[in-house]
Amino acid sequence: MGQHFPIIVDWGTSNFRAYRFDARGLSEERRAETGILKVAGGDFEGALRAAVGDWLSEESEVFLSGMITSRNGWVETPYAFAPATLADLKAQVVEKRLDDGVTLRFLPGVARRAPRPDVMRGEEIQAFGAVADDASAIVVLPGTHSKWVMVEHGRIADFCSMMTGEMFAVLKDHSILGRLIDPAAHEARPAAFARGVELALSSAPGGFLNHIFTARSGVLLGALEAADIPDYLSGVVIGHEVREGLRIAPGRGVTLIGDEKLAARYKTALALAGIEAAIGDQRATVAGFEKLAAHG
Amino acid sequence: MGQHFPIIVDWGTSNFRAYRFDARGLSEERRAETGILKVAGGDFEGALRAAVGDWLSEESEVFLSGMITSRNGWVETPYAFAPATLADLKAQVVEKRLDDGVTLRFLPGVARRAPRPDVMRGEEIQAFGAVADDASAIVVLPGTHSKWVMVEHGRIADFCSMMTGEMFAVLKDHSILGRLIDPAAHEARPAAFARGVELALSSAPGGFLNHIFTARSGVLLGALEAADIPDYLSGVVIGHEVREGLRIAPGRGVTLIGDEKLAARYKTALALAGIEAAIGDQRATVAGFEKLAAHG
Repeated sequence: MGQHFPIIVDWGTSNFRAYRFDARGLSEERRAETGILKVAGGDFEGALRAAVGDWLSEESEVFLSGMITSRNGWVETPYAFAPATLADLKAQVVEKRLDDGVTLRFLPGVARRAPRPDVMRGEEIQAFGAVADDASAIVVLPGTHSKWVMVEHGRIADFCSMMTGEMFAVLKDHSILGRLIDPAAHEARPAAFARGVELALSSAPGGFLNHIFTARSGVLLGALEAADIPDYLSGVVIGHEVREGLRIAPGRGVTLIGDEKLAARYKTALALAGIEAAIGDQRATVAGFEKLAAHG
Repeated sequence: MGQHFPIIVDWGTSNFRAYRFDARGLSEERRAETGILKVAGGDFEGALRAAVGDWLSEESEVFLSGMITSRNGWVETPYAFAPATLADLKAQVVEKRLDDGVTLRFLPGVARRAPRPDVMRGEEIQAFGAVADDASAIVVLPGTHSKWVMVEHGRIADFCSMMTGEMFAVLKDHSILGRLIDPAAHEARPAAFARGVELALSSAPGGFLNHIFTARSGVLLGALEAADIPDYLSGVVIGHEVREGLRIAPGRGVTLIGDEKLAARYKTALALAGIEAAIGDQRATVAGFEKLAAHG
Protein backbone atom coordinates (compact mmCIF):
# COMPACT_ATOMS: atom_id res chain seq x y z
CA MET A 1 0.00 0.00 0.00
CA GLY A 2 0.93 3.63 -0.51
CA GLN A 3 1.91 4.27 3.06
CA HIS A 4 5.11 2.26 2.61
CA PHE A 5 6.17 4.15 -0.51
CA PRO A 6 6.72 7.69 0.62
CA ILE A 7 6.46 11.02 -1.07
CA ILE A 8 9.29 13.32 -0.12
CA VAL A 9 9.28 17.08 -0.60
CA ASP A 10 12.58 19.00 -0.55
CA TRP A 11 11.29 22.56 -0.12
CA GLY A 12 13.91 25.24 0.18
CA THR A 13 14.15 28.99 0.04
CA SER A 14 14.25 29.13 -3.75
CA ASN A 15 13.10 25.73 -5.02
CA PHE A 16 10.46 23.05 -4.57
CA ARG A 17 11.25 19.45 -5.51
CA ALA A 18 9.06 16.43 -4.86
CA TYR A 19 9.90 12.73 -5.24
CA ARG A 20 7.57 9.73 -5.29
CA PHE A 21 8.88 6.29 -4.52
CA ASP A 22 7.55 2.82 -5.25
CA ALA A 23 8.84 -0.68 -4.56
CA ARG A 24 11.67 -0.25 -7.07
CA GLY A 25 12.79 3.18 -5.79
CA LEU A 26 12.20 6.61 -7.29
CA SER A 27 9.20 6.53 -9.60
CA GLU A 28 8.56 10.20 -10.34
CA GLU A 29 10.10 13.60 -9.69
CA ARG A 30 8.52 17.06 -10.00
CA ARG A 31 9.95 20.53 -9.66
CA ALA A 32 8.36 23.92 -9.11
CA GLU A 33 9.62 27.47 -8.75
CA THR A 34 7.69 27.94 -5.53
CA GLY A 35 10.49 28.15 -2.97
CA ILE A 36 9.18 29.29 0.41
CA LEU A 37 9.99 32.94 -0.29
CA LYS A 38 7.90 32.81 -3.47
CA VAL A 39 4.69 31.38 -1.98
CA ALA A 40 2.11 34.17 -2.20
CA GLY A 41 0.45 34.95 1.11
CA GLY A 42 2.09 31.97 2.83
CA ASP A 43 -0.40 29.60 1.14
CA PHE A 44 1.92 26.60 1.42
CA GLU A 45 -0.93 24.09 1.17
CA GLY A 46 -2.07 25.66 -2.09
CA ALA A 47 1.48 25.50 -3.45
CA LEU A 48 1.87 21.86 -2.40
CA ARG A 49 -1.45 20.84 -3.98
CA ALA A 50 -0.68 22.76 -7.17
CA ALA A 51 2.55 20.78 -7.56
CA VAL A 52 1.64 17.27 -6.38
CA GLY A 53 -2.05 17.34 -5.39
CA ASP A 54 -2.75 14.24 -7.52
CA TRP A 55 -0.19 12.23 -5.50
CA LEU A 56 -1.82 12.91 -2.13
CA SER A 57 -4.27 10.67 -0.28
CA GLU A 58 -5.06 9.74 3.31
CA GLU A 59 -2.67 6.83 2.96
CA SER A 60 0.26 8.90 1.66
CA GLU A 61 3.38 9.04 3.79
CA VAL A 62 4.58 12.56 2.99
CA PHE A 63 7.87 13.89 4.40
CA LEU A 64 8.92 17.53 4.09
CA SER A 65 12.51 18.72 4.50
CA GLY A 66 14.41 21.98 4.10
CA MET A 67 13.54 25.56 4.96
CA ILE A 68 9.81 24.72 4.84
CA THR A 69 10.43 23.39 8.38
CA SER A 70 12.05 26.65 9.56
CA ARG A 71 10.63 29.67 11.34
CA ASN A 72 9.92 31.24 7.94
CA GLY A 73 8.31 28.08 6.58
CA TRP A 74 5.04 26.24 7.12
CA VAL A 75 5.64 24.22 10.30
CA GLU A 76 8.71 24.95 12.42
CA THR A 77 10.25 21.73 13.69
CA PRO A 78 12.79 21.32 16.47
CA TYR A 79 16.38 20.21 15.87
CA ALA A 80 17.87 16.75 16.32
CA PHE A 81 21.23 17.27 18.01
CA ALA A 82 24.32 15.68 16.48
CA PRO A 83 25.27 12.88 16.61
CA ALA A 84 22.11 11.93 14.74
CA THR A 85 21.02 9.01 12.52
CA LEU A 86 18.28 8.98 9.89
CA ALA A 87 16.13 7.07 12.40
CA ASP A 88 16.67 9.93 14.91
CA LEU A 89 15.37 12.37 12.30
CA LYS A 90 12.28 10.28 11.54
CA ALA A 91 11.58 9.92 15.26
CA GLN A 92 11.29 13.69 15.59
CA VAL A 93 8.91 14.53 12.76
CA VAL A 94 6.16 17.02 13.47
CA GLU A 95 2.87 15.89 11.93
CA LYS A 96 0.20 18.11 10.44
CA ARG A 97 -3.13 16.71 9.27
CA LEU A 98 -4.82 18.58 6.44
CA ASP A 99 -8.61 18.96 6.26
CA ASP A 100 -8.98 16.10 3.76
CA GLY A 101 -7.07 13.69 6.01
CA VAL A 102 -3.66 13.87 4.30
CA THR A 103 -0.92 13.75 6.95
CA LEU A 104 2.30 15.70 6.40
CA ARG A 105 5.47 14.82 8.31
CA PHE A 106 7.90 17.72 8.75
CA LEU A 107 11.44 16.56 9.45
CA PRO A 108 13.59 18.19 12.13
CA GLY A 109 16.75 20.15 11.36
CA VAL A 110 20.09 19.09 12.79
CA ALA A 111 21.91 21.19 15.37
CA ARG A 112 25.01 21.32 17.55
CA ARG A 113 25.28 23.04 20.90
CA ALA A 114 27.10 26.12 22.27
CA PRO A 115 29.78 27.44 22.46
CA ARG A 116 29.68 26.91 18.70
CA PRO A 117 25.95 26.52 18.08
CA ASP A 118 25.11 25.49 14.55
CA VAL A 119 22.05 24.53 12.51
CA MET A 120 21.11 23.03 9.16
CA ARG A 121 17.85 22.07 7.48
CA GLY A 122 17.98 19.82 4.45
CA GLU A 123 21.72 19.36 3.91
CA GLU A 124 21.76 16.46 6.38
CA ILE A 125 19.69 14.35 3.98
CA GLN A 126 22.12 15.06 1.15
CA ALA A 127 25.00 14.09 3.42
CA PHE A 128 23.38 10.74 4.20
CA GLY A 129 22.77 10.25 0.49
CA ALA A 130 26.38 10.99 -0.44
CA VAL A 131 27.99 8.34 1.77
CA ALA A 132 27.56 4.58 1.46
CA ASP A 133 25.86 2.92 4.45
CA ASP A 134 28.25 2.53 7.33
CA ALA A 135 31.07 4.40 5.55
CA SER A 136 32.67 7.56 6.91
CA ALA A 137 33.51 10.79 5.07
CA ILE A 138 33.44 14.53 5.21
CA VAL A 139 30.67 15.73 2.94
CA VAL A 140 31.13 19.34 1.84
CA LEU A 141 28.09 21.17 0.50
CA PRO A 142 29.36 24.52 -0.85
CA GLY A 143 26.96 27.42 -1.04
CA THR A 144 25.56 30.52 0.60
CA HIS A 145 26.11 28.86 3.97
CA SER A 146 28.44 25.96 3.19
CA LYS A 147 28.17 22.86 5.35
CA TRP A 148 30.98 20.47 6.29
CA VAL A 149 29.25 17.34 7.52
CA MET A 150 31.15 14.56 9.27
CA VAL A 151 29.35 11.30 8.50
CA GLU A 152 30.52 8.32 10.53
CA HIS A 153 29.03 4.84 10.23
CA GLY A 154 25.55 5.98 9.25
CA ARG A 155 25.26 8.94 11.56
CA ILE A 156 26.07 12.64 11.40
CA ALA A 157 28.79 12.95 14.03
CA ASP A 158 29.28 16.69 13.71
CA PHE A 159 29.06 19.54 11.23
CA CYS A 160 30.12 23.13 10.65
CA SER A 161 28.48 25.96 8.70
CA MET A 162 30.57 28.63 7.00
CA MET A 163 29.04 31.77 5.49
CA THR A 164 31.26 31.59 2.43
CA GLY A 165 28.88 32.28 -0.43
CA GLU A 166 27.07 35.07 1.38
CA MET A 167 30.39 36.59 2.48
CA PHE A 168 31.66 36.70 -1.10
CA ALA A 169 28.43 38.32 -2.25
CA VAL A 170 28.27 41.02 0.42
CA LEU A 171 31.95 41.91 -0.03
CA LYS A 172 31.61 42.14 -3.79
CA ASP A 173 28.32 44.03 -3.77
CA HIS A 174 28.48 46.15 -0.62
CA SER A 175 32.11 46.71 0.44
CA ILE A 176 34.99 48.78 -0.87
CA LEU A 177 36.46 45.60 -2.40
CA GLY A 178 33.84 45.67 -5.13
CA ARG A 179 34.46 49.26 -6.17
CA LEU A 180 37.50 48.56 -8.33
CA ILE A 181 35.73 45.75 -10.21
CA ASP A 182 34.75 46.48 -13.79
CA PRO A 183 31.14 45.23 -13.97
CA ALA A 184 31.56 44.49 -17.69
CA ALA A 185 34.51 42.10 -17.16
CA HIS A 186 33.57 38.46 -16.71
CA GLU A 187 36.70 36.65 -17.85
CA ALA A 188 37.68 33.75 -15.58
CA ARG A 189 41.05 34.23 -13.89
CA PRO A 190 42.05 30.83 -12.51
CA ALA A 191 45.56 32.00 -11.59
CA ALA A 192 44.06 34.80 -9.47
CA PHE A 193 41.76 32.27 -7.80
CA ALA A 194 44.75 30.07 -6.95
CA ARG A 195 46.69 33.03 -5.52
CA GLY A 196 43.77 33.87 -3.26
CA VAL A 197 43.48 30.28 -2.07
CA GLU A 198 47.22 30.08 -1.42
CA LEU A 199 47.22 33.22 0.70
CA ALA A 200 44.31 31.84 2.75
CA LEU A 201 45.97 28.45 3.20
CA SER A 202 49.32 29.96 4.17
CA SER A 203 50.20 30.85 7.70
CA ALA A 204 50.37 34.52 6.67
CA PRO A 205 49.44 36.77 9.59
CA GLY A 206 46.42 39.00 9.49
CA GLY A 207 43.81 36.30 8.99
CA PHE A 208 40.56 36.65 7.12
CA LEU A 209 40.00 40.36 7.84
CA ASN A 210 43.41 41.22 6.41
CA HIS A 211 43.58 38.71 3.58
CA ILE A 212 40.38 39.99 1.96
CA PHE A 213 41.81 43.54 2.03
CA THR A 214 44.68 42.41 -0.22
CA ALA A 215 42.11 42.22 -3.06
CA ARG A 216 42.17 46.03 -2.93
CA SER A 217 45.72 46.79 -1.80
CA GLY A 218 47.08 44.32 -4.36
CA VAL A 219 45.46 46.31 -7.15
CA LEU A 220 46.57 49.67 -5.72
CA LEU A 221 50.16 48.37 -5.63
CA GLY A 222 50.09 46.69 -9.04
CA ALA A 223 50.33 43.13 -7.71
CA LEU A 224 46.86 42.33 -9.08
CA GLU A 225 44.76 43.61 -11.97
CA ALA A 226 41.26 44.91 -11.34
CA ALA A 227 39.94 42.06 -13.50
CA ASP A 228 41.55 39.60 -11.05
CA ILE A 229 39.53 40.82 -8.06
CA PRO A 230 36.44 38.59 -8.29
CA ASP A 231 38.34 35.31 -8.69
CA TYR A 232 41.09 36.34 -6.26
CA LEU A 233 38.54 37.28 -3.61
CA SER A 234 36.62 34.06 -4.26
CA GLY A 235 39.90 32.19 -3.72
CA VAL A 236 40.61 33.97 -0.43
CA VAL A 237 37.12 33.27 0.93
CA ILE A 238 36.90 29.64 -0.25
CA GLY A 239 40.51 29.08 0.86
CA HIS A 240 39.64 30.16 4.40
CA GLU A 241 36.67 27.80 4.40
CA VAL A 242 38.83 24.90 3.22
CA ARG A 243 41.58 25.67 5.72
CA GLU A 244 39.18 25.71 8.66
CA GLY A 245 37.15 22.76 7.38
CA LEU A 246 40.26 20.60 7.18
CA ARG A 247 41.15 21.57 10.76
CA ILE A 248 37.88 20.02 11.90
CA ALA A 249 38.60 16.60 10.49
CA PRO A 250 42.10 16.38 9.06
CA GLY A 251 43.12 13.45 6.94
CA ARG A 252 39.70 12.15 6.01
CA GLY A 253 38.21 11.70 2.58
CA VAL A 254 36.21 14.65 1.27
CA THR A 255 33.16 14.34 -0.98
CA LEU A 256 31.80 17.49 -2.64
CA ILE A 257 28.09 17.80 -3.36
CA GLY A 258 26.62 20.74 -5.20
CA ASP A 259 26.53 22.95 -8.25
CA GLU A 260 29.08 21.70 -10.78
CA LYS A 261 31.03 24.95 -11.25
CA LEU A 262 31.18 25.68 -7.56
CA ALA A 263 32.24 22.11 -6.76
CA ALA A 264 35.05 22.47 -9.30
CA ARG A 265 36.33 25.59 -7.47
CA TYR A 266 36.33 23.69 -4.20
CA LYS A 267 38.10 20.73 -5.79
CA THR A 268 40.84 23.11 -6.95
CA ALA A 269 41.11 24.74 -3.52
CA LEU A 270 41.25 21.36 -1.78
CA ALA A 271 43.92 20.18 -4.22
CA LEU A 272 46.02 23.24 -3.31
CA ALA A 273 45.64 22.09 0.30
CA GLY A 274 46.88 18.62 -0.67
CA ILE A 275 43.47 16.92 -0.58
CA GLU A 276 42.09 14.92 -3.50
CA ALA A 277 38.34 15.43 -3.19
CA ALA A 278 35.69 13.30 -4.88
CA ILE A 279 32.83 15.03 -6.65
CA GLY A 280 29.78 13.26 -5.26
CA ASP A 281 26.66 12.13 -7.01
CA GLN A 282 24.52 15.12 -7.97
CA ARG A 283 21.55 13.02 -6.93
CA ALA A 284 22.65 12.81 -3.31
CA THR A 285 19.35 14.33 -2.24
CA VAL A 286 17.37 11.56 -3.91
CA ALA A 287 19.75 8.92 -2.56
CA GLY A 288 19.29 10.38 0.92
CA PHE A 289 15.54 10.31 0.55
CA GLU A 290 15.68 6.72 -0.70
CA LYS A 291 17.51 5.82 2.50
CA LEU A 292 14.96 7.74 4.54
CA ALA A 293 12.16 5.88 2.74
CA ALA A 294 13.87 2.56 3.34
CA HIS A 295 14.05 3.25 7.08
CA GLY A 296 10.31 2.56 7.30
CA MET B 1 60.02 83.04 8.55
CA GLY B 2 56.85 81.16 7.66
CA GLN B 3 58.53 78.44 5.66
CA HIS B 4 59.91 76.88 8.81
CA PHE B 5 56.54 76.80 10.58
CA PRO B 6 54.41 74.49 8.51
CA ILE B 7 50.73 74.26 7.86
CA ILE B 8 49.52 70.69 7.87
CA VAL B 9 46.24 69.52 6.39
CA ASP B 10 44.77 66.15 7.43
CA TRP B 11 42.20 65.63 4.68
CA GLY B 12 40.28 62.39 4.81
CA THR B 13 37.21 60.87 3.26
CA SER B 14 34.82 62.54 5.69
CA ASN B 15 36.73 65.35 7.42
CA PHE B 16 39.10 68.22 6.80
CA ARG B 17 41.40 69.41 9.58
CA ALA B 18 44.17 71.96 9.28
CA TYR B 19 46.92 72.86 11.79
CA ARG B 20 49.23 75.87 11.84
CA PHE B 21 52.47 75.73 13.76
CA ASP B 22 54.78 78.43 15.08
CA ALA B 23 57.99 78.39 17.07
CA ARG B 24 56.19 77.15 20.19
CA GLY B 25 54.25 74.38 18.43
CA LEU B 26 50.58 74.28 17.38
CA SER B 27 49.19 77.81 17.11
CA GLU B 28 45.82 77.29 15.45
CA GLU B 29 43.53 74.48 14.33
CA ARG B 30 40.56 74.59 11.94
CA ARG B 31 38.00 71.98 10.94
CA ALA B 32 35.63 71.73 8.02
CA GLU B 33 33.05 69.22 6.85
CA THR B 34 34.58 69.04 3.40
CA GLY B 35 36.00 65.53 3.38
CA ILE B 36 37.11 64.54 -0.12
CA LEU B 37 33.80 62.85 -0.92
CA LYS B 38 31.96 66.08 -0.10
CA VAL B 39 33.94 68.45 -2.29
CA ALA B 40 31.56 69.55 -5.05
CA GLY B 41 32.92 69.02 -8.55
CA GLY B 42 36.34 68.04 -7.22
CA ASP B 43 37.18 71.71 -6.52
CA PHE B 44 39.76 70.85 -3.87
CA GLU B 45 41.56 74.18 -4.26
CA GLY B 46 38.34 76.05 -3.57
CA ALA B 47 37.68 73.94 -0.49
CA LEU B 48 41.23 74.48 0.79
CA ARG B 49 41.04 78.25 0.28
CA ALA B 50 37.60 78.44 1.88
CA ALA B 51 38.97 76.79 5.01
CA VAL B 52 42.48 78.27 5.36
CA GLY B 53 42.97 80.74 2.50
CA ASP B 54 44.13 83.45 4.88
CA TRP B 55 47.00 81.22 6.09
CA LEU B 56 48.47 80.64 2.64
CA SER B 57 51.34 82.56 1.06
CA GLU B 58 54.24 81.83 -1.29
CA GLU B 59 56.36 81.20 1.77
CA SER B 60 54.00 78.70 3.40
CA GLU B 61 55.21 75.16 3.83
CA VAL B 62 51.94 73.25 3.39
CA PHE B 63 51.79 69.46 3.85
CA LEU B 64 48.71 67.41 2.96
CA SER B 65 48.07 63.91 4.30
CA GLY B 66 45.24 61.37 4.15
CA MET B 67 42.91 60.30 1.36
CA ILE B 68 43.44 63.65 -0.40
CA THR B 69 46.66 61.96 -1.65
CA SER B 70 44.82 58.90 -2.97
CA ARG B 71 43.45 58.04 -6.39
CA ASN B 72 40.15 59.64 -5.40
CA GLY B 73 41.81 62.76 -4.00
CA TRP B 74 43.55 65.80 -5.47
CA VAL B 75 47.09 64.58 -6.17
CA GLU B 76 47.84 60.85 -6.03
CA THR B 77 51.17 60.22 -4.37
CA PRO B 78 53.25 57.03 -4.41
CA TYR B 79 53.82 54.89 -1.33
CA ALA B 80 56.87 54.77 0.92
CA PHE B 81 57.53 51.10 1.61
CA ALA B 82 57.91 49.97 5.21
CA PRO B 83 60.23 50.19 7.06
CA ALA B 84 59.83 53.96 6.78
CA THR B 85 60.78 56.97 8.92
CA LEU B 86 59.17 60.42 8.96
CA ALA B 87 62.16 61.65 6.96
CA ASP B 88 61.43 58.97 4.34
CA LEU B 89 57.89 60.32 4.05
CA LYS B 90 59.04 63.90 3.66
CA ALA B 91 61.57 62.84 1.04
CA GLN B 92 58.76 61.50 -1.15
CA VAL B 93 56.35 64.43 -1.16
CA VAL B 94 54.75 65.36 -4.47
CA GLU B 95 54.67 69.14 -4.92
CA LYS B 96 51.96 71.12 -6.66
CA ARG B 97 52.32 74.87 -7.24
CA LEU B 98 49.10 76.85 -7.35
CA ASP B 99 48.63 79.81 -9.69
CA ASP B 100 49.40 82.34 -6.98
CA GLY B 101 52.70 80.67 -6.10
CA VAL B 102 51.57 78.70 -3.04
CA THR B 103 53.31 75.32 -3.01
CA LEU B 104 51.47 72.27 -1.66
CA ARG B 105 53.37 69.17 -0.53
CA PHE B 106 51.38 65.94 -0.73
CA LEU B 107 52.77 63.22 1.52
CA PRO B 108 53.10 59.62 0.33
CA GLY B 109 51.14 56.75 1.82
CA VAL B 110 52.91 53.79 3.40
CA ALA B 111 52.81 50.32 1.85
CA ARG B 112 54.09 46.79 2.28
CA ARG B 113 54.74 44.32 -0.51
CA ALA B 114 53.15 41.08 -1.76
CA PRO B 115 52.27 38.36 -0.90
CA ARG B 116 50.40 40.42 1.69
CA PRO B 117 50.28 43.82 0.02
CA ASP B 118 48.95 46.56 2.27
CA VAL B 119 48.43 50.32 2.19
CA MET B 120 47.59 53.22 4.46
CA ARG B 121 47.28 56.97 4.03
CA GLY B 122 47.25 59.15 7.12
CA GLU B 123 47.34 56.60 9.94
CA GLU B 124 51.15 56.48 9.76
CA ILE B 125 51.34 60.07 11.04
CA GLN B 126 49.11 59.21 14.00
CA ALA B 127 51.30 56.19 14.74
CA PHE B 128 54.41 58.36 14.83
CA GLY B 129 52.56 60.80 17.09
CA ALA B 130 51.44 58.09 19.51
CA VAL B 131 54.91 56.76 20.32
CA ALA B 132 57.72 58.67 22.04
CA ASP B 133 60.81 59.23 19.89
CA ASP B 134 62.90 56.11 19.67
CA ALA B 135 60.39 54.01 21.65
CA SER B 136 58.73 50.89 20.24
CA ALA B 137 55.05 49.90 20.41
CA ILE B 138 52.17 48.47 18.48
CA VAL B 139 49.79 51.30 17.68
CA VAL B 140 46.26 50.09 16.95
CA LEU B 141 43.93 52.46 15.10
CA PRO B 142 40.48 50.82 15.13
CA GLY B 143 38.00 51.74 12.45
CA THR B 144 36.51 50.90 9.07
CA HIS B 145 39.88 49.51 8.02
CA SER B 146 41.75 49.11 11.31
CA LYS B 147 45.53 49.45 11.25
CA TRP B 148 48.04 47.67 13.48
CA VAL B 149 51.26 49.64 13.14
CA MET B 150 54.56 48.36 14.48
CA VAL B 151 56.66 51.39 15.44
CA GLU B 152 60.27 50.60 16.27
CA HIS B 153 62.82 53.25 17.22
CA GLY B 154 61.28 56.05 15.20
CA ARG B 155 60.31 54.07 12.13
CA ILE B 156 57.29 52.11 10.96
CA ALA B 157 58.68 48.60 10.78
CA ASP B 158 55.52 46.93 9.50
CA PHE B 159 51.74 47.22 9.60
CA CYS B 160 48.55 45.30 8.91
CA SER B 161 45.09 46.46 7.83
CA MET B 162 41.97 44.59 8.89
CA MET B 163 38.52 45.35 7.46
CA THR B 164 36.85 45.10 10.84
CA GLY B 165 34.53 48.10 10.90
CA GLU B 166 33.40 47.64 7.33
CA MET B 167 32.90 43.89 7.91
CA PHE B 168 30.66 44.54 10.91
CA ALA B 169 28.62 47.07 8.94
CA VAL B 170 28.08 44.90 5.84
CA LEU B 171 27.16 41.85 7.92
CA LYS B 172 24.68 43.82 10.01
CA ASP B 173 23.14 45.71 7.11
CA HIS B 174 23.38 43.30 4.19
CA SER B 175 23.62 39.70 5.45
CA ILE B 176 21.22 37.23 7.04
CA LEU B 177 22.86 38.00 10.42
CA GLY B 178 21.11 41.35 10.55
CA ARG B 179 17.62 40.00 9.90
CA LEU B 180 16.92 38.87 13.45
CA ILE B 181 18.00 42.24 14.92
CA ASP B 182 15.23 44.45 16.24
CA PRO B 183 16.09 47.87 14.78
CA ALA B 184 14.45 49.60 17.76
CA ALA B 185 16.70 47.88 20.34
CA HIS B 186 19.86 49.78 21.23
CA GLU B 187 20.64 48.51 24.71
CA ALA B 188 24.34 47.74 25.23
CA ARG B 189 25.03 44.07 25.94
CA PRO B 190 28.60 43.88 27.28
CA ALA B 191 28.28 40.21 28.26
CA ALA B 192 27.30 39.36 24.68
CA PHE B 193 30.29 41.34 23.41
CA ALA B 194 32.61 39.37 25.72
CA ARG B 195 31.14 36.04 24.56
CA GLY B 196 31.79 36.99 20.96
CA VAL B 197 35.37 38.00 21.73
CA GLU B 198 35.98 34.79 23.66
CA LEU B 199 34.75 32.60 20.81
CA ALA B 200 37.04 34.46 18.41
CA LEU B 201 40.05 34.20 20.73
CA SER B 202 39.49 30.50 21.43
CA SER B 203 40.93 27.80 19.26
CA ALA B 204 37.37 26.78 18.29
CA PRO B 205 37.35 25.29 14.81
CA GLY B 206 35.45 26.90 11.98
CA GLY B 207 37.26 30.23 12.00
CA PHE B 208 35.81 33.57 11.06
CA LEU B 209 33.28 32.29 8.49
CA ASN B 210 31.77 29.93 11.07
CA HIS B 211 32.07 32.09 14.16
CA ILE B 212 30.02 34.92 12.67
CA PHE B 213 27.26 32.41 11.80
CA THR B 214 26.84 31.62 15.51
CA ALA B 215 25.24 35.08 15.86
CA ARG B 216 22.29 33.55 14.03
CA SER B 217 22.42 29.90 15.09
CA GLY B 218 22.85 30.96 18.73
CA VAL B 219 19.55 32.84 18.58
CA LEU B 220 17.76 30.00 16.74
CA LEU B 221 18.90 27.59 19.47
CA GLY B 222 18.17 29.90 22.41
CA ALA B 223 21.82 30.41 23.40
CA LEU B 224 21.59 34.13 22.53
CA GLU B 225 18.78 36.67 22.51
CA ALA B 226 18.08 38.68 19.38
CA ALA B 227 19.03 41.82 21.32
CA ASP B 228 22.49 40.29 21.88
CA ILE B 229 23.29 40.03 18.17
CA PRO B 230 24.88 43.45 17.51
CA ASP B 231 27.28 43.34 20.47
CA TYR B 232 27.96 39.62 20.09
CA LEU B 233 28.78 40.04 16.40
CA SER B 234 30.93 43.08 17.20
CA GLY B 235 32.78 40.90 19.72
CA VAL B 236 33.38 38.12 17.19
CA VAL B 237 34.71 40.51 14.54
CA ILE B 238 36.88 42.60 16.89
CA GLY B 239 38.04 39.41 18.62
CA HIS B 240 39.31 38.05 15.32
CA GLU B 241 41.16 41.29 14.65
CA VAL B 242 42.78 41.20 18.08
CA ARG B 243 43.72 37.54 17.78
CA GLU B 244 45.43 38.07 14.44
CA GLY B 245 46.97 41.39 15.43
CA LEU B 246 48.62 39.82 18.45
CA ARG B 247 50.02 37.04 16.23
CA ILE B 248 51.91 39.68 14.26
CA ALA B 249 53.81 41.06 17.24
CA PRO B 250 53.15 39.04 20.37
CA GLY B 251 54.19 40.33 23.76
CA ARG B 252 54.63 43.99 22.89
CA GLY B 253 52.88 46.98 24.40
CA VAL B 254 49.70 48.07 22.62
CA THR B 255 48.54 51.70 22.36
CA LEU B 256 45.02 52.37 21.11
CA ILE B 257 44.27 55.56 19.18
CA GLY B 258 40.78 56.49 18.07
CA ASP B 259 37.20 57.18 18.93
CA GLU B 260 36.70 56.80 22.69
CA LYS B 261 33.86 54.27 22.61
CA LEU B 262 35.52 52.12 20.00
CA ALA B 263 38.86 52.24 21.81
CA ALA B 264 37.08 51.06 24.97
CA ARG B 265 35.73 48.01 23.09
CA TYR B 266 39.21 47.17 21.89
CA LYS B 267 40.64 47.64 25.38
CA THR B 268 38.08 45.10 26.65
CA ALA B 269 38.86 42.65 23.85
CA LEU B 270 42.60 42.99 24.43
CA ALA B 271 42.11 42.47 28.17
CA LEU B 272 40.25 39.21 27.39
CA ALA B 273 43.36 38.23 25.41
CA GLY B 274 45.53 39.01 28.44
CA ILE B 275 46.92 42.31 27.12
CA GLU B 276 46.70 45.55 29.11
CA ALA B 277 46.43 48.21 26.40
CA ALA B 278 47.07 51.91 26.88
CA ILE B 279 44.56 54.38 25.46
CA GLY B 280 46.76 56.82 23.58
CA ASP B 281 46.55 60.56 23.35
CA GLN B 282 43.57 61.59 21.23
CA ARG B 283 45.83 64.25 19.78
CA ALA B 284 48.21 61.74 18.23
CA THR B 285 47.58 63.29 14.83
CA VAL B 286 48.75 66.70 16.01
CA ALA B 287 51.68 65.15 17.84
CA GLY B 288 52.64 63.33 14.65
CA PHE B 289 52.42 66.52 12.65
CA GLU B 290 54.52 68.34 15.22
CA LYS B 291 57.20 65.71 14.71
CA LEU B 292 56.86 66.06 10.96
CA ALA B 293 57.21 69.84 11.29
CA ALA B 294 60.27 69.43 13.51
CA HIS B 295 61.98 67.26 10.87
CA GLY B 296 62.59 70.37 8.79
